[in-house]
Amino acid sequence: MQPIFFLSDYMEGAHSEILRRLCDTQMEQLSGYGTDKYTASAKERIKDACECPEAQVYFLTGGTQTNKFVIDVLLRPYEGVISAHSGHVNAHEAGAIESTGHKVLALAGHNGKLCAEDVDACVEAYNADGSREHTVKPGMVYISFPTEYGTIYTKSELEDLSRVCRKHGIPLFCDGARLGYGLMSGACDITLAELARLCDVFYIGGTKVGALCGEAVVFTKGNMPEHIVSLAKQHGALLAKGWLVGLQFDTLFTDGLYFKIARHAILQAEKVKTALLEKGYRLFMDSPTNQQFVIMKNSQIEELYPKVRFETWEKYDAEHTVVRIATSWATPDENIEKLVSLL
Amino acid sequence: MQPIFFLSDYMEGAHSEILRRLCDTQMEQLSGYGTDKYTASAKERIKDACECPEAQVYFLTGGTQTNKFVIDVLLRPYEGVISAHSGHVNAHEAGAIESTGHKVLALAGHNGKLCAEDVDACVEAYNADGSREHTVKPGMVYISFPTEYGTIYTKSELEDLSRVCRKHGIPLFCDGARLGYGLMSGACDITLAELARLCDVFYIGGTKVGALCGEAVVFTKGNMPEHIVSLAKQHGALLAKGWLVGLQFDTLFTDGLYFKIARHAILQAEKVKTALLEKGYRLFMDSPTNQQFVIMKNSQIEELYPKVRFETWEKYDAEHTVVRIATSWATPDENIEKLVSLL
Amino acid sequence: MQPIFFLSDYMEGAHSEILRRLCDTQMEQLSGYGTDKYTASAKERIKDACECPEAQVYFLTGGTQTNKFVIDVLLRPYEGVISAHSGHVNAHEAGAIESTGHKVLALAGHNGKLCAEDVDACVEAYNADGSREHTVKPGMVYISFPTEYGTIYTKSELEDLSRVCRKHGIPLFCDGARLGYGLMSGACDITLAELARLCDVFYIGGTKVGALCGEAVVFTKGNMPEHIVSLAKQHGALLAKGWLVGLQFDTLFTDGLYFKIARHAILQAEKVKTALLEKGYRLFMDSPTNQQFVIMKNSQIEELYPKVRFETWEKYDAEHTVVRIATSWATPDENIEKLVSLL
Amino acid sequence: MQPIFFLSDYMEGAHSEILRRLCDTQMEQLSGYGTDKYTASAKERIKDACECPEAQVYFLTGGTQTNKFVIDVLLRPYEGVISAHSGHVNAHEAGAIESTGHKVLALAGHNGKLCAEDVDACVEAYNADGSREHTVKPGMVYISFPTEYGTIYTKSELEDLSRVCRKHGIPLFCDGARLGYGLMSGACDITLAELARLCDVFYIGGTKVGALCGEAVVFTKGNMPEHIVSLAKQHGALLAKGWLVGLQFDTLFTDGLYFKIARHAILQAEKVKTALLEKGYRLFMDSPTNQQFVIMKNSQIEELYPKVRFETWEKYDAEHTVVRIATSWATPDENIEKLVSLL
Repeated sequence: MQPIFFLSDYMEGAHSEILRRLCDTQMEQLSGYGTDKYTASAKERIKDACECPEAQVYFLTGGTQTNKFVIDVLLRPYEGVISAHSGHVNAHEAGAIESTGHKVLALAGHNGKLCAEDVDACVEAYNADGSREHTVKPGMVYISFPTEYGTIYTKSELEDLSRVCRKHGIPLFCDGARLGYGLMSGACDITLAELARLCDVFYIGGTKVGALCGEAVVFTKGNMPEHIVSLAKQHGALLAKGWLVGLQFDTLFTDGLYFKIARHAILQAEKVKTALLEKGYRLFMDSPTNQQFVIMKNSQIEELYPKVRFETWEKYDAEHTVVRIATSWATPDENIEKLVSLL
Repeated sequence: MQPIFFLSDYMEGAHSEILRRLCDTQMEQLSGYGTDKYTASAKERIKDACECPEAQVYFLTGGTQTNKFVIDVLLRPYEGVISAHSGHVNAHEAGAIESTGHKVLALAGHNGKLCAEDVDACVEAYNADGSREHTVKPGMVYISFPTEYGTIYTKSELEDLSRVCRKHGIPLFCDGARLGYGLMSGACDITLAELARLCDVFYIGGTKVGALCGEAVVFTKGNMPEHIVSLAKQHGALLAKGWLVGLQFDTLFTDGLYFKIARHAILQAEKVKTALLEKGYRLFMDSPTNQQFVIMKNSQIEELYPKVRFETWEKYDAEHTVVRIATSWATPDENIEKLVSLL
Repeated sequence: MQPIFFLSDYMEGAHSEILRRLCDTQMEQLSGYGTDKYTASAKERIKDACECPEAQVYFLTGGTQTNKFVIDVLLRPYEGVISAHSGHVNAHEAGAIESTGHKVLALAGHNGKLCAEDVDACVEAYNADGSREHTVKPGMVYISFPTEYGTIYTKSELEDLSRVCRKHGIPLFCDGARLGYGLMSGACDITLAELARLCDVFYIGGTKVGALCGEAVVFTKGNMPEHIVSLAKQHGALLAKGWLVGLQFDTLFTDGLYFKIARHAILQAEKVKTALLEKGYRLFMDSPTNQQFVIMKNSQIEELYPKVRFETWEKYDAEHTVVRIATSWATPDENIEKLVSLL
Repeated sequence: MQPIFFLSDYMEGAHSEILRRLCDTQMEQLSGYGTDKYTASAKERIKDACECPEAQVYFLTGGTQTNKFVIDVLLRPYEGVISAHSGHVNAHEAGAIESTGHKVLALAGHNGKLCAEDVDACVEAYNADGSREHTVKPGMVYISFPTEYGTIYTKSELEDLSRVCRKHGIPLFCDGARLGYGLMSGACDITLAELARLCDVFYIGGTKVGALCGEAVVFTKGNMPEHIVSLAKQHGALLAKGWLVGLQFDTLFTDGLYFKIARHAILQAEKVKTALLEKGYRLFMDSPTNQQFVIMKNSQIEELYPKVRFETWEKYDAEHTVVRIATSWATPDENIEKLVSLL
């Protein structure tokens, strides 16, 4: 028997509605590089969902590509990007950010989150440094929503970060590779429109929320760089069949599909969390989203291995390991039931 | 009435068989980053088709991304890549190659093709130069098959290029974004297996030959760089759902589908070419592949515009323009008939 | 007996006055990174000599470093720099420009010079290109004065280039590694002040005109980038003892020393040129500056080799080679006499 | 009255013997780019001093340039360099390392020093990481000798670091911008030859130890990269008058001058340290080299300001600041006496 997997939220293909539209449009002749009508429509739908008519939307293919691109095109060469130590751009992108010439200025995180005071102190320290020309200028703040630990910022925390960024004239960039799972969390007190208002640039992750691939970058303050097509091409990030991403987002942002399927993952994760707590498991971090971090006995992980797989996150102690249990837009009830019965 | 388009070979979606398999596998849980079974299977099928069991296959998403990646990971920083002036890497990639730090050493082309003598002379000139440490070392030869003008190398020309490259110890890299349309041309005297033998690295284009996206890079001489996953990630070229490309190539290389659909485009292009010649049009270049370059009166182009669109290639003289007419794996007979009747 | 060398203009050390001041200031305590008083004084003297009080001056160490730095800090990533094929940045910098991510857009030169019409046509072609987002945007024009062939632009030619650059809103950058030898040529009809007016950025070469090292970059239109110290440091171009260059330029721009010693090289070159013409030698190019390009019999070059050395420039035909004879600020009369007698 | 400065060790010019030789060789015609006889001689003298006949020596101009160059040319793109948080490459190079595409993997330091256990743990963690292809591979260990806090590694500590590096097959790189001041410290239990044996690459700093500029990179294991001249040129680090650095090192390594003048700085620093301790000052860190870090009252710093200047290192508490007092090869006795009397 095949094991069931809770390894990540990018293990299944695309939502049926996306596949249906790919089939329906198969033989349509569409112009290349994102100049097609579906991409145009998707941009409008996203601007509407963000309640931000002045937003500029640009589609890319994957998370690391998007982080690398946004950071590179918005920073000057001597600028670096502030991130939590656990931030994806610092810890899990194989040096993609540095490969564009920019330093990641890593600060201690708080359950995966940056705090506004730390960011402010970092920029103030740079400003106060008499020999600051010899250090890297903080030029952007990177946060992820939800974070790599499944936690989410409160509205008040985001407002504080946004205020600090504006005080210092640097953009606040939010990695939303799992944005749907953050916004649909029961613990979330912020809307997409509020996020758009507080950030200067963010993206709406498709790859992990129902699409085959694709991320929608939203520049909210008229700050999309000129010649973005050339910049994307230089980054190897320009799809010939640009509508592949446009069409998927057009679908995801029709009738709130994106939010609906994200909500499904949250509900499945809550079932898992409830079961974990009932059965006496210790959570490594209290996550309100689709990723649950649990401290498990090594022996138990081995025992479960033939039947269910989690991602090993980090060693906890000699006998325990932190594992991540991730649900997705596609996780069926039967997998949840099987998992609960196995725990 | 909607015009018909012969603008390029990437205007339609994916082949039905690809879409069917995407739908069939929708809910399968697959491991990420190209470690899934479909990707593994696709690699085997491609190695078989290349009759090159020692080949190493790696999947990427698009043409410019692939050119940039292959050139960057195989060259040392002080090396450049030889290309024809009209080569895609020199003329139409917005500086993507240079963005990785490498110079394109452009030589005059012959109907879009490099000739072995010119390449040899270029490398010999470097070797003979007493102050060569101050110039860029030729470190690779880039060709496209078919070329940007639709022409193809003969077996003998490729053997000559291959011999020169081996003499100088530099790899021969073939951009096969349209490889199918080259190999299936009636004028082609080379097989995929022979291409694999003569080149050190090449890729099989999917985006332009039936796939939504995807290129299969084949390193034929055990020369795939170590840590290729990290390198791809740094380039922003690593898909989370790697099977999106793997599955498509698995389909294209099952029962010769790739070649069958490429052949279709050639047959359609031949009909167009025959009609053009019968009606007295002048060809700008005699292309045996799916791209036809025709010298047209500007007035005629304007007249046809509401009904049929071509890509404007270059100005010919005050009253004429060179246009490109491109067929694809998806071009239906009725479009060909309509075009022929309009010409 | 030691041969005499006319290989280049950077074979001797520094002018005596420079050495004297280095000795005099040996034990002075000076602040680092170019914040010292001698650097400040040198900047003022250069601005005076340029009759350009709004100019911003920044010192770097060598020619390739300066070309690389100026091009990189003034261009956006998607922009390239127009140069003649023979331009130093295109032909003799080992890919230093490309290593910063920028393409050199090489145009045919005319005796080493770019012509305004060609530049205009190049930019217009980009502007007119419907798919220009896929090509490199011309973002700067690079010229050298004198050129790599010793030729110099006339005032009228520079005015034309300047006009084209302003029309298109791109900076005109002049590589003045040998600037003194251009301005002091009898054929020169332009002053330093006029050059400053016509160019947007240029540099005054020290390395080849009396200094141990050092180039003075002059941004003439308030266009020096912010954070230039950080940018220089990132480029590895920031000297701790910045006054090493500042002091040298302070010396060279006191009492017109720079021009005086440059004039010396011109006079010596004219003696050589006169002798060459009298003795029936053919000049490869008619240079009015310190570099003379002569077509010599291979047998004669070999014969002279033990006594006098020139740089081999390029093969002329089976029996002849183009050699470069370079004089410098330091070439003594006796070397000229010896050379003339040997010719 | 002019204040005296203990701001840094690069405030004075060059040693008299260097100036003398620059004057003596002024009119000699020397070949460019480091191919001259003085550079050749300097290389031999350095190899002798290192007791490492197989060493390869290459001269560069300054510290950041050298760090950037060595790290970039020895690492593969996906590799990063391990450094202490306080390491110059991490903290004070304006992102120069990242500008070459490489991440600095910063570990906690111990009085500015890396410890072998931490380095081993870092590499082992990478090796043990199941998804290590998504993180940066540790590819080099960077240490400075003396460190940025003036401390030095013991022989035993270096042996441990060297052992860990060899175990993992990664080079140990020692930044010796102040190498003389480390080797001549009374606390130093290692010789230059031993350093050469334990490191894979290191450099001997000239800029801070008696030269106008210049660093001598020593590759001790036959590991100097091919085409180093082209690599240097690409980095903008190739001096036309290469002998400027070669001649200085030839002088510094004649009759042990380098060590003699470094010893002078140590003796002067010891006088300062003794006086500080006698007068009840608290040292921030116990440095045995030419940089002393002292906790001073802010009011006292202000009071001394018109007469003597130190570099402000970091805030200690509301009323105290850590200052750095640096002596150099050139610090005269009278300055020491004046300082001591002022303290």
